[in-house]
Amino acid sequence: MTQILTLSEALPLDTLLSQVDTHGLTWEILPFTGELPKITGIGSLSDAVPNEIGFLANPKFFDLLQITQASAVILPKRAVDVLPKELPFVVVQCEEPYLLYARISQWFEKALFAGEQRKIHPSAVVSPEAKVGQNVCIHALAVVEEGVVIGDNVTIGAGTVVGKNVHIGAGTRLYANVTLYHGVQIGKACIIHSGAVIGADGFGFAPDHTVEKGAWSKIAQLGKVIIEDNVEVGANTTIDRGALGNTIIRRGVKLDNQIMIAHNCEVGEHTAMAACVGVAGSSKIGRRSTLAGASMVSGHIEIGDDVHISGGSGVMSSITTPGRYTGLWPIMEHRAWQKNAGALNSLYELRRRVQDLEKNLTQRED
Amino acid sequence: MTQILTLSEALPLDTLLSQVDTHGLTWEILPFTGELPKITGIGSLSDAVPNEIGFLANPKFFDLLQITQASAVILPKRAVDVLPKELPFVVVQCEEPYLLYARISQWFEKALFAGEQRKIHPSAVVSPEAKVGQNVCIHALAVVEEGVVIGDNVTIGAGTVVGKNVHIGAGTRLYANVTLYHGVQIGKACIIHSGAVIGADGFGFAPDHTVEKGAWSKIAQLGKVIIEDNVEVGANTTIDRGALGNTIIRRGVKLDNQIMIAHNCEVGEHTAMAACVGVAGSSKIGRRSTLAGASMVSGHIEIGDDVHISGGSGVMSSITTPGRYTGLWPIMEHRAWQKNAGALNSLYELRRRVQDLEKNLTQRED
Amino acid sequence: MTQILTLSEALPLDTLLSQVDTHGLTWEILPFTGELPKITGIGSLSDAVPNEIGFLANPKFFDLLQITQASAVILPKRAVDVLPKELPFVVVQCEEPYLLYARISQWFEKALFAGEQRKIHPSAVVSPEAKVGQNVCIHALAVVEEGVVIGDNVTIGAGTVVGKNVHIGAGTRLYANVTLYHGVQIGKACIIHSGAVIGADGFGFAPDHTVEKGAWSKIAQLGKVIIEDNVEVGANTTIDRGALGNTIIRRGVKLDNQIMIAHNCEVGEHTAMAACVGVAGSSKIGRRSTLAGASMVSGHIEIGDDVHISGGSGVMSSITTPGRYTGLWPIMEHRAWQKNAGALNSLYELRRRVQDLEKNLTQRED
Repeated sequence: MTQILTLSEALPLDTLLSQVDTHGLTWEILPFTGELPKITGIGSLSDAVPNEIGFLANPKFFDLLQITQASAVILPKRAVDVLPKELPFVVVQCEEPYLLYARISQWFEKALFAGEQRKIHPSAVVSPEAKVGQNVCIHALAVVEEGVVIGDNVTIGAGTVVGKNVHIGAGTRLYANVTLYHGVQIGKACIIHSGAVIGADGFGFAPDHTVEKGAWSKIAQLGKVIIEDNVEVGANTTIDRGALGNTIIRRGVKLDNQIMIAHNCEVGEHTAMAACVGVAGSSKIGRRSTLAGASMVSGHIEIGDDVHISGGSGVMSSITTPGRYTGLWPIMEHRAWQKNAGALNSLYELRRRVQDLEKNLTQRED
Repeated sequence: MTQILTLSEALPLDTLLSQVDTHGLTWEILPFTGELPKITGIGSLSDAVPNEIGFLANPKFFDLLQITQASAVILPKRAVDVLPKELPFVVVQCEEPYLLYARISQWFEKALFAGEQRKIHPSAVVSPEAKVGQNVCIHALAVVEEGVVIGDNVTIGAGTVVGKNVHIGAGTRLYANVTLYHGVQIGKACIIHSGAVIGADGFGFAPDHTVEKGAWSKIAQLGKVIIEDNVEVGANTTIDRGALGNTIIRRGVKLDNQIMIAHNCEVGEHTAMAACVGVAGSSKIGRRSTLAGASMVSGHIEIGDDVHISGGSGVMSSITTPGRYTGLWPIMEHRAWQKNAGALNSLYELRRRVQDLEKNLTQRED
Repeated sequence: MTQILTLSEALPLDTLLSQVDTHGLTWEILPFTGELPKITGIGSLSDAVPNEIGFLANPKFFDLLQITQASAVILPKRAVDVLPKELPFVVVQCEEPYLLYARISQWFEKALFAGEQRKIHPSAVVSPEAKVGQNVCIHALAVVEEGVVIGDNVTIGAGTVVGKNVHIGAGTRLYANVTLYHGVQIGKACIIHSGAVIGADGFGFAPDHTVEKGAWSKIAQLGKVIIEDNVEVGANTTIDRGALGNTIIRRGVKLDNQIMIAHNCEVGEHTAMAACVGVAGSSKIGRRSTLAGASMVSGHIEIGDDVHISGGSGVMSSITTPGRYTGLWPIMEHRAWQKNAGALNSLYELRRRVQDLEKNLTQRED
């Protein structure tokens, strides 16, 4: 139950659906006696209240159709076929209920943002040497430095800092308190969440005995970050600029919160990373791969296309074969862990002892 | 040794203690010849200097009482009983020295903040459509958007952005550069540290073949974040808004820095999480549980009340029995690790070989 | 290929090198027929374009010297000796090519920043009770509170908040949206990246039954953070203030992004930590040690000098012997992991079974 509009603001189901950007996805409102409901929001089958639309994306929730209070439900034909003809909700038949739900949710978000004033707030500090497109919205106390180029319909949140010579493509939204360092390039229709820092220095140092044993001399990070279209970057995620050359995030990549992408990495099209993932420098990740939460990737390695890394796993060498990979000590009661961890310390000795036993037995058989 | 006040600002021990909010905790200054010292700050027994108050919270530090320079020490009766009658410091007898220390530390922090001007800085951008309570302090260049409701005695740090329709309960303090997205609700007496981002979008996408193989369609995150009273949120921690429904942090929860709470999670009363913990979407954590640093919780699972997860452990399925749980490869010299890690790759084969040996021996015995 | 200057801005190789702060490192331009090239930027041997300088830091890239388009290359004598006399690039002979590259990169970064206006932007809010040195640059919408002392040549980025009584040493650069809490001390020539939060409260609570079973009473964090000279702090890294006493980062320490240093830790000279490392409270780390990405250190332990922790490893007890240490489940195909993880649950039983087998065999031999 997530009401977005009041009943007086809400549109009838058919009008709403006709306004949703379905992008080729087809749907049909099945015949229904009575007036079509106005839709104020979206709910799961169990939580929806009247005037909300629900959806059946997973067959295991089928029984919830008997109790849902949703006024409309998105269902695939195979579910409709086994339901009674008379139902207490309107059926929107669609073969991909979850995707249609996504599209409807986007429509509601647009409605939420409709009140946003598309103007430059007088407290924002926008360099006269920046080039700002049409219908751009810059919120209070944002900073746009010289040489910046901002496309049409861009939104820049309060307190966000856009460094020198940054380029931002049309339709991109930066939330509040984002930081873009000089020279960063962001594509079209991207979303960058608060606290994200894009273009900070990569971590590069040369050992420097001229100063002192163990001292480090900074390698200035002279490359850029290039983010292509339709990328989402989560809150407090960091993407460092290249040392020489660039860090590149390809179109359609989705990054959750608190992810760290080090300098000179490249992340392929439509790859998604859940929160707290870290990718060390110069690694290259393929297309359509997924890294689950808190997984880590070492530097200078390659992960191919369609590779799926489980949460908390560390990738220490290249993986080029598609598939799912895991490396994580399974959690157990602490006492059991203590005993197993103790035994682990001498696992290779244990293996040798088994070999000895096998040899011993074989010899006796001889 | 942490001096907060100068000697001329400091209060005599009895006056200070009478001003401390002890909330039912009892204490007594034992008879002492001479004047009671003025207390300028707090120190550990080993570091305290004259005019500071120390405390004995752990019996293993008992011997430090012989060398401490603290002018006053908080001690439980069982320690007082075994000490000589004449002591070079004043004894504050209290059965919970650590808790009394906590309360005194709060008194000193209040003294530190006493100089804060309770006003709205002229450079802050506060919407005329926000409702601001009594004795509110809004620091320089903070932003408060329309529809916000701020309770009495709230403090909002410099550069902090409070989004549309946020509610903040009385007595809550947001430090500098916090970001609250639209619609977030914060309870009373909360503390939110710098860089925290509350209410950013959860990470939700539907596979979208209408665009391209592997592409994602955003699921707009239409829920909220609700934080109850007495919650502390550490620096750069992120708490995402619900997709449908809300993300909920119950009263008394303590979150350290760089924690990630994903959409639609619920964290129960008084649960504490150390830094760098990640909790994936829709998971529910009970009351009075603790998650040590860098532990991870998978999505859609449940952790019960009074469950304690060790640092760096990954919780991949529900844990409902109270207790301590651990999962972490114990660190070892790299060479030993290489050998053991190699053996681990075939651990289940090793187990089978042991079974074969056992069978083989049993047969011989027959 | 990373062009920093246009050809008309660029300097001839010898002029450029004479301006580089080599700090005792020696180099020599070997005899060359023709005019010395102007140098517009730096490139790796494979990516450099004409008018860029490259370097050979690793013998395995020796063959790239045959194809590089760099106009100048830094080479050690042992490489020069085996090369033909006539080369298509100018040779800068230097026994430490990587360190000279670092120094040249710093020169280019200085050139990049040369256009920065060394002034206080009128939109910045600087307390009249702050003491600001010579040639200080404070960017738009930064906040400098009362009692702050800023050394000469300091740069403070847009949106950065410098809390009460902070001290910042000469030549230090804070990027945009940094937060320094009250009383923090930063040394000379430090670099603090965006989103870093220094001086937030450490995570300290006393159990407090006077409120409720399981409740916590805050221990006010009354100490400071002290950062010495030449320290770099990465984006979104957090360093908490001490509870009593201070958190200390010694000179030359390099911290990457999203690192968490808890209260009362001390990090020794020139120690470097890669991204996503977490160090729990009161731990002490020695000099010249390295912690690779996502490694974790428990609280109240000690890591000595010259200790190297591998990525993703958890240090649960003190390590005082120099060397490399590792603890991380090696990643494997998910199915193999499932079987091995299952076997791990009874590893200590397996060890006992092997012992039984050994005993059994020994008895038979008797």
